[in-house]
Amino acid sequence: MDEYVERILRAVGPLDERAMAEARERQDRLTKPQGSLGRLEELSIRIAGMKGRMVGTLEHKAIVTMAADHGVAAEGVSAYPQEVTGQMVYNFLQGGACINVLAAHLGARVIVVDMGVASAAEPHPALVSKTLGAGTRNMAAGPAMTRQQALEAIKAGVEVVDAEVSRGLDIVGTGDMGIGNTTASAAVCAAVTGIPVESITGRGTGIDDRQLAHKVEVIRRALEVNQPDPADPVDILAKVGGFEIGGLAGVMLGAAAHRVPVVLDGFISGAAALLAAGLSPQAKDYFIAAHHSAEPGHGVMLEHLRLAPLLDLDMRLGEGSGAALGIFLAEAAVKVLAQMATFGEAGVAMKG
Amino acid sequence: MDEYVERILRAVGPLDERAMAEARERQDRLTKPQGSLGRLEELSIRIAGMKGRMVGTLEHKAIVTMAADHGVAAEGVSAYPQEVTGQMVYNFLQGGACINVLAAHLGARVIVVDMGVASAAEPHPALVSKTLGAGTRNMAAGPAMTRQQALEAIKAGVEVVDAEVSRGLDIVGTGDMGIGNTTASAAVCAAVTGIPVESITGRGTGIDDRQLAHKVEVIRRALEVNQPDPADPVDILAKVGGFEIGGLAGVMLGAAAHRVPVVLDGFISGAAALLAAGLSPQAKDYFIAAHHSAEPGHGVMLEHLRLAPLLDLDMRLGEGSGAALGIFLAEAAVKVLAQMATFGEAGVAMKG
Repeated sequence: MDEYVERILRAVGPLDERAMAEARERQDRLTKPQGSLGRLEELSIRIAGMKGRMVGTLEHKAIVTMAADHGVAAEGVSAYPQEVTGQMVYNFLQGGACINVLAAHLGARVIVVDMGVASAAEPHPALVSKTLGAGTRNMAAGPAMTRQQALEAIKAGVEVVDAEVSRGLDIVGTGDMGIGNTTASAAVCAAVTGIPVESITGRGTGIDDRQLAHKVEVIRRALEVNQPDPADPVDILAKVGGFEIGGLAGVMLGAAAHRVPVVLDGFISGAAALLAAGLSPQAKDYFIAAHHSAEPGHGVMLEHLRLAPLLDLDMRLGEGSGAALGIFLAEAAVKVLAQMATFGEAGVAMKG
Repeated sequence: MDEYVERILRAVGPLDERAMAEARERQDRLTKPQGSLGRLEELSIRIAGMKGRMVGTLEHKAIVTMAADHGVAAEGVSAYPQEVTGQMVYNFLQGGACINVLAAHLGARVIVVDMGVASAAEPHPALVSKTLGAGTRNMAAGPAMTRQQALEAIKAGVEVVDAEVSRGLDIVGTGDMGIGNTTASAAVCAAVTGIPVESITGRGTGIDDRQLAHKVEVIRRALEVNQPDPADPVDILAKVGGFEIGGLAGVMLGAAAHRVPVVLDGFISGAAALLAAGLSPQAKDYFIAAHHSAEPGHGVMLEHLRLAPLLDLDMRLGEGSGAALGIFLAEAAVKVLAQMATFGEAGVAMKG
């Protein structure tokens, strides 16, 4: 294991039990029946544990949307051509994509990161370049990347979080863009969980039955050719992952190390979370599952991570669109805990 | 039937099919795989149908929180004493309740309406008084209110919406406060749906097993004593409803008549929605179910209304807390439809 990554893993600490007990105790004094806010109460308590104290709000919100291309796209696993990755990066930078609209709606900034887009992205002041090359290699024929690149991808994600923390970061969401990346994510899921490929492979951007059968076959071939070591997340990332998947795993580890709650988007973020949790089981305590994606393998990932999603709106876009909605709920939970009056303050009679 | 209420019912028109077709067509040209935003897409299309056109945002947002007392509280059906209703109204006016925090979080105003709180509420500039008396009568011994009061309650709700529309109202959420009102709502649900009382009666603010059995018995008695006519929503409201339940039914009908989307909170709003939809099946097209409440009868209500909730966070507070979160999602849906770039605008390649 790389020394830099080792240091990050060591920096991830446990949730603060005292802060959680204080938050729980305050929830029970707020002017509402105990437990009546259900999962918002749990969420507020977990976030207090992550931060080490109750906070009044989550002012500084960011969504990190990482883009990269995938050599496996050459196998015809997506409904869209590869150049769409770069075109969508441009769309993110112009503010025309879904994630831009949702982030603005909740007052979050979007950090667009080029982790390795094949089409030459024009330099743009708002584009963070961490490119590791013009996309991964075709995993159906050999490793998607080298072990060194896999470690670099994780580091890049940690660095992105470090930079955002220095600007102020109270909560972060994860997002992705990459034609072919549901293929890589399904492969990662199969490698980590051992669950058969056909039960976790979905239609991604919208392929038909024939293409879906082909996609399953391609993923099976990638796993056979590469034989990723289930016990080694970096090996899995290198052999069947993607640059943005590694980057997002780094974002998750970096956020956990900084005690920043990290709101996971859907299937691609789920693959990254499996790898991040494999590297640091403790980091998982800082993860909030925003939603249950329509991609069929996502439920398997969430079960493996023992995370219960907040939303289930049949979404499957990526970009961080589900994470954006989850951040809104997380901030609602935090504000309710901090700002509601207690029975004593409001002069309301308690349970008889 | 009352002439004023008849006029409102006649004012409720169908969804605008042309606007919905336009919205659907635009969704399919936005820079994302078709259908990938799932229920947010559906929601944006329905809202276009409600409004008769696509809108850019839902700037003017309000939550109408109606409070009233219930004579049936004398039977010991709640974990809290009756004076909590008035105390919580005061809490709403002071800004210390959950609904205040959530409404501020999403930029909505809260309209607090006294529909008949027993404890003398002190006059307050922000309190809308539509009081019909010091709470209903005990429905376990006779009708909760007169038929005239039931009609007045509905009218009051319509008037509240009329006043808010004149200030600007793009979307409205419903909320409630009233010790004893899950008892009345379960009775309304049983009267409308014919489903056995024991399967739709829950713990409300948090009663124990013994109290729950007693609550079921009280509701059964109320239905036996009053024999509400399942085909007459006003009769049901009068015999086993509540002033705030009638008021909320009026809010829903008034909103539908004004083509304003109405976001339903949980169990008490569900009872009001059953009555409103009974009076005007068309009005239901303007209803958005915010969440699935933890109160067991709520699922039955939503099934009867054929509404799929957006959220399921194990919440059971009322006040409009679930509706507030639903309004955020509705506005997200509207903004995505209006503000995202199309494939043509963004220069992104379409599906291959």
